[in-house]
Formats: sequence, C-alpha cells, structure tokens
Amino acid sequence: MASTRIREARETDCGDILRMIRELAEYEKLSHQVKISEEALRADGFGENPFFHCLVAEIVPAPGELQGPTVVGFGLYYFIYSTWTGRNVYLEDIYVMPKYRGQGIGTKIIKKVAEEALHKGCSQFRLAVLDWNKKAIDLYKSLGAKDLTEAEGWHFFRFEQEAMKVLAG
Amino acid sequence: MASTRIREARETDCGDILRMIRELAEYEKLSHQVKISEEALRADGFGENPFFHCLVAEIVPAPGELQGPTVVGFGLYYFIYSTWTGRNVYLEDIYVMPKYRGQGIGTKIIKKVAEEALHKGCSQFRLAVLDWNKKAIDLYKSLGAKDLTEAEGWHFFRFEQEAMKVLAG
Repeated sequence: MASTRIREARETDCGDILRMIRELAEYEKLSHQVKISEEALRADGFGENPFFHCLVAEIVPAPGELQGPTVVGFGLYYFIYSTWTGRNVYLEDIYVMPKYRGQGIGTKIIKKVAEEALHKGCSQFRLAVLDWNKKAIDLYKSLGAKDLTEAEGWHFFRFEQEAMKVLAG
Repeated sequence: MASTRIREARETDCGDILRMIRELAEYEKLSHQVKISEEALRADGFGENPFFHCLVAEIVPAPGELQGPTVVGFGLYYFIYSTWTGRNVYLEDIYVMPKYRGQGIGTKIIKKVAEEALHKGCSQFRLAVLDWNKKAIDLYKSLGAKDLTEAEGWHFFRFEQEAMKVLAG
C-alpha cells in the first residue's frame, strides 16, 4: 500500500509547490493576488541564505507499484521574531490537495514544523487563517492553537507596493 | 531647538529598546507575555545573522543644550516571505513614548521601514494592531494600509510552546 512521507522540499519541487500555491489561493478566493514564479521560488528558497523553508507531503508507492512519488501537499514557513518571546516560526501556507484530505497529512506537516521550530529554539508558532475556513480553524484549534484575533483583537494590516512607494517618497 | 532623528539601532540601544518593549506591552495590556531579556536582544539582533532589524527615534539636542540624545521610540522589523509576492517586510513593534507623540515620529519610522523594504525588493509591508487601538489604526489607514482582517477575514492563530511540545511528541 502507498504511504505518505513529509520531507524537506528540494529545488526540483518548485513546480509542484507553485501549482499548489495557486490551488490554495484559488480555494481562498484570492488567486488574483498570486504573482510569484517558479524561478523566484527556486532563487528565494534554495540559495545560500534562503528566505523560506518548505516541507512537502509525498505519496510513496508501495514496492512494485508503477507510479513514482507524487507531491500532494506542502507547508511553507520561515523564522520571525517576537519582542516578547524571541525567535518564533510562522507557517505562511499549508495545503493538502482535496483528494488527499482526511488522512492526517496536514497534521503531519504541522507536527514537523513544530519539531523544526523547537529544534531552533522557538517558543511560539504563528499562522493565519480566513474566518470562513471552518475546517482549517477546527484543525488548528484541535491541535492546540489559539485564535488571537478572537481572544485579543489582533488585526492584520498591509501596505501594498504603491502605498510603500508613496511612503518612501 | 532639539530635533528628531531616525537611525538604525546599535547594540548599546538594547536597554532602551527593552524598556520600550515593556512600555508598549503595558499599553497593549499584554505585558505578562513579555519574557525577553536585554541579553537576548543583543545576541539575536546584533550578531552575524541577525534575527531582526531595529530603528530607533532619537531626540537630538540643539548645539549648546546640555542633555545628550534620548531614545524615545523604536520600530522592530524583519523580512518574511509571501507565496504570492515573494519577499516582504513585517513590522513587529512600533512605539513612541507618550510624551513624544503627535510630532510625526511614528510616521517617520514607518516611512523608513518602507524605504528599507523597497530597497530589499519587498512588495508588501505587513503589521498587526489591536482592534481597540484606534489611534494606531487611524494612522496606518491614513498612510495607506488596508485592514485585511476586516477586508478578507484573516485571523491570527498561535501555538504556544506547550502545544508545540505536544505536537512534536
């Protein structure tokens, strides 16, 4: 029987990662905001000082099965800094293809990120989710995450490039 | 007359930065969450691969005035990564001491962060604010930021260290 493996992404996974970034943005109804290219992912994630880290979930065929491994999910994260607790981790994206949901793959990705983060001395693990994405919210809460927008009132703000240019003058 | 200057923080500013981190957390009514030390700020922000960048606002006395420069505000930021737009900047903390508000110091810090971020190729600039902090919200909006929690429904989630340890097993 095929099994699932979570492993660090390689540069050659960037095509799959970009495909899934687009699928996730589509699901979030925000795909018009995706401007990234495969080349940018390769350069930014796999150089000497990578800007991000990425895990992929791979279906590994049983011995004798014909098809090779297939990438069906990913988690992209990076290290951030809290002025209250020091080095932390932020999971920017987590995604599992619809056909492969309900098998605990998302949980495996989150567990692996927590493991890496503890290993690097992080004491908190942040992520963001859309308020209508009930399945994701239920999963994160069941794994022990707290909704800080609900509990403390934190709102996300963002300056787009145009606003930044005006600011910078 | 005294003037205000925004400059990159030096390691010797960490005492002032920690004092202001505590003042900000107090204002946010969340000071029980502050665990950081001056030593950690020195090590994490001023080594070979700093985990964050920091600007300070300094009141510079006029020639002939007796008192030396005084640090009255700060902005602590780091680079993050969007799967939609690539390298971005995140302003973790921004603070101006109450006595020095209303003089545009916060705006100057934000402008300087936008400048640095554009210089590094960033196309977005994120930050978070508490929903009751109307003055800060009004300032960010007036400078062109968008409330994404309001507009798109993004919620902050966080796993604390205990939850992370359970996840990592």
